[in-house]
Amino acid sequence: MLKNDPLEQWDRDHFLHPSTHLAEFARGNVAHRIVSGGEGSHIVDRNGTRLLDGFAGLYCVNVGYGRREIADAIAKQARELSYYHSYVGHGTEASVTLAHMILERAPANMSKVFFGLGGSDANETNIKLIWYMNNILGRPGKKKIISRWRGYHGSGLMSGSLTGLPLFHKAFDLPLAPILHTEAPYYYRRPNADMSEEAFSAWCASELEAMIQREGPDTIAAFWAEPVLGTGGIVPPPEGYWAAIQEVLDRHDILLVADEVITGFGRLGTMFGSDHYGMKPDVITIAKGLTSAYAPLSGSVLSEKVWKVLEQGTDEMGAIGHGWTYSAHPIGAAAGVANLKLIDELGLIDNAAEVGAHLRAGMRDALGEHPNVGDIRGEGMLCAVELVSDRESKEGFDPSRKVTVNAVAHLMENGVIGRAMPHSETIGFAPPFCLTRDEADEIVAKTAAAVKAVLG
Amino acid sequence: MLKNDPLEQWDRDHFLHPSTHLAEFARGNVAHRIVSGGEGSHIVDRNGTRLLDGFAGLYCVNVGYGRREIADAIAKQARELSYYHSYVGHGTEASVTLAHMILERAPANMSKVFFGLGGSDANETNIKLIWYMNNILGRPGKKKIISRWRGYHGSGLMSGSLTGLPLFHKAFDLPLAPILHTEAPYYYRRPNADMSEEAFSAWCASELEAMIQREGPDTIAAFWAEPVLGTGGIVPPPEGYWAAIQEVLDRHDILLVADEVITGFGRLGTMFGSDHYGMKPDVITIAKGLTSAYAPLSGSVLSEKVWKVLEQGTDEMGAIGHGWTYSAHPIGAAAGVANLKLIDELGLIDNAAEVGAHLRAGMRDALGEHPNVGDIRGEGMLCAVELVSDRESKEGFDPSRKVTVNAVAHLMENGVIGRAMPHSETIGFAPPFCLTRDEADEIVAKTAAAVKAVLG
Ligand SMILES: Cc1ncc(COP(=O)(O)O)c(C=O)c1O
Ligand SMILES: Cc1ncc(COP(=O)(O)O)c(C=O)c1O
Repeated sequence: MLKNDPLEQWDRDHFLHPSTHLAEFARGNVAHRIVSGGEGSHIVDRNGTRLLDGFAGLYCVNVGYGRREIADAIAKQARELSYYHSYVGHGTEASVTLAHMILERAPANMSKVFFGLGGSDANETNIKLIWYMNNILGRPGKKKIISRWRGYHGSGLMSGSLTGLPLFHKAFDLPLAPILHTEAPYYYRRPNADMSEEAFSAWCASELEAMIQREGPDTIAAFWAEPVLGTGGIVPPPEGYWAAIQEVLDRHDILLVADEVITGFGRLGTMFGSDHYGMKPDVITIAKGLTSAYAPLSGSVLSEKVWKVLEQGTDEMGAIGHGWTYSAHPIGAAAGVANLKLIDELGLIDNAAEVGAHLRAGMRDALGEHPNVGDIRGEGMLCAVELVSDRESKEGFDPSRKVTVNAVAHLMENGVIGRAMPHSETIGFAPPFCLTRDEADEIVAKTAAAVKAVLG
Repeated sequence: MLKNDPLEQWDRDHFLHPSTHLAEFARGNVAHRIVSGGEGSHIVDRNGTRLLDGFAGLYCVNVGYGRREIADAIAKQARELSYYHSYVGHGTEASVTLAHMILERAPANMSKVFFGLGGSDANETNIKLIWYMNNILGRPGKKKIISRWRGYHGSGLMSGSLTGLPLFHKAFDLPLAPILHTEAPYYYRRPNADMSEEAFSAWCASELEAMIQREGPDTIAAFWAEPVLGTGGIVPPPEGYWAAIQEVLDRHDILLVADEVITGFGRLGTMFGSDHYGMKPDVITIAKGLTSAYAPLSGSVLSEKVWKVLEQGTDEMGAIGHGWTYSAHPIGAAAGVANLKLIDELGLIDNAAEVGAHLRAGMRDALGEHPNVGDIRGEGMLCAVELVSDRESKEGFDPSRKVTVNAVAHLMENGVIGRAMPHSETIGFAPPFCLTRDEADEIVAKTAAAVKAVLG
């Protein structure tokens, strides 16, 4: 629809969009969409197009769009006090309450929350605090960090180094030292088809062990991982993975940082992914689900063990030199409090578990036998459909065919948003927790139609 | 006042505050303050204490507290659409409009805006884009960045490396390579008392030139600087500084990144510090003043020259692998649009210039002859009072006396917020632009009283 205003021109002339082909967008060859509203699992753009958002924004609008309770909390906070900083003991009723609510929900042994803005900066904070910790503990050589290929931990210089996806490294000179990457627990693409899940998990742990031995255990500070790989293809861990990894880390006194930016606050059908898989993290990164993206807010949740060293550190060195102007921003904190309450009140985590299972079951019924569907996987309200040219060899497609991109475009034309995951031919879904069974069925039917349209 | 609720306990038990002595706060030896409201230049806490905020939060609540117009814009956006991402050509009316409004106000030759959340991540983005740019231009060895001692560019691993203040480096293993620091243009502490401002500026430029020669001009990508040093002591540049620096940078094809997180959108009494001083930046970092902190939002403003290379880069390499979930967050964008309109409508930049000058003049009248006041400086709505034990030698005090910290505490007890700047005995002021002459006079009178109380 042609609009009688300059918005599209301004957009193309002035707005540098993330993750975009910049030249093609400026030339007008990539679609421009002004999103104007939303309700439940749907968004609406200013042309009146209504889309079922099978990705909840970027796995973040967990409670769904148009939640009056959160909008009202934001409005109330904006009218009372939009901003004051949280340095040196300052806070707001919302930020202090939210710190408490997070600790009520977090795994055992967690003690403190530092508030940031997004997942990337929370991971930065965690690196800084872990380095500081090992300096205070008198082991300044224990600073390397091992993350995983296919991990996604952000887009900054260090958070992007933690990330293990070439798209986020190439031409940016990443990863920077001292970040190393070990194997992804991608069972579908295991090195040997005969391996059981347990055997593959043991192999992943032995690869980690070998890297630690190669580098020297005294040089490794932390292991960084999402409970379920997200942007790397929506890959839940195989049976026994976390127990095997945890054993290696414990043996070498290496901290576990659980990046729960996607999984925190319910996406796996349980409050935290760490509890879901019996992980014992020392630090947890939270963002997206903390506010359902209604306002920017992230957090670094620290265990009592880490906290004790920070306490010692400030006794030795004085105030800690770390903070963001917008740490614990009142608007984000108010959104977070309202969001966590709403999740409880509406029982949304149970719905995520139930309807997510229904979504995957439907996807398996509809596409499980398709000759180009290699794997259908997920956990909680996450579902991935991996496409292959051949189920036996598991080979992909010629990238120039853009099979997944085209399938997702077909899906979008039919009113459903899915995501072509980078670095695998995988269609990903991470719908809002309030998804209904009917909506799940619609996603399934239209995904099946899209796959058939593109691949026959 | 004792409150009948657990907020203080929750705060001490669970909330890790930025820039705080963590152990002392947890033990109850650092004050806890719940800020509950504000209007104009004042904040109010939940005990009913009302304070004149001489620092506008952290130099950011430029339009002052309680602005209904911005709160309403936030409320409206929250009700219509709190979040959708801005990846791959998506946006909202507010974010596209704001991109346009920023370019209308920015210095000449600016072309595009990438939106982030805070000043630190915007600086990260800028490093990434500059490295990418030099890779695309086929000069992968041109990657080092020179910033300045006393610069403040954030608290992340790389943004904290750009920062040139030991408090933000120590025990965090910063600065990381490839960041170097050159001299601060701190005329009051020039190496030789006989130097004119121009001679000192020439010396700063020659120090920069020497560093560039030492490292090799082909290895230096960019020079990073605040138009006026902020956290490093509120230090405006001496006469001729920016012209002398710009000449060196131009000669060696080194980009200038102007970190206008504090100075952007009016703090110097003009829209941008770059225009104020005739700087010719290739990239500008913006944050704080963009939304007056009513919601988190930052930006990287790129010149046409930089943009052209990014355009070429995506033509060669495809979509750019950079972005934050909360890039161009709708709530921040709505706040930004309302904030920039309000600044124009109320003529706040002119007020910042006028009342800021009045504040400095008042401070000079009240304290200019005090034997422990070494320097009173500032620009626009910025004012700094540097304390010395002896005006002749310019020597400071024994740090254990905490002279500035005590003066600022005295000020706070009398209802005015100032800031003890780190790494110099300097009391800093950066009030909201709406400060009245009477309020400026109150700041002056109470600062004079505080200095006299502490130093006689
Ligand atoms: C697991 C994980 N960590 C970190 C991030 C980075 O968060 P942000 O985009 O808010 O910086 C993301 C974003 O997708 C994520 O999925
Ligand atoms: C000049 C400058 N740049 C960057 C920053 C970092 O901004 P933020 O705290 O929003 O990350 C600040 C914050 O004070 C600043 O003053």
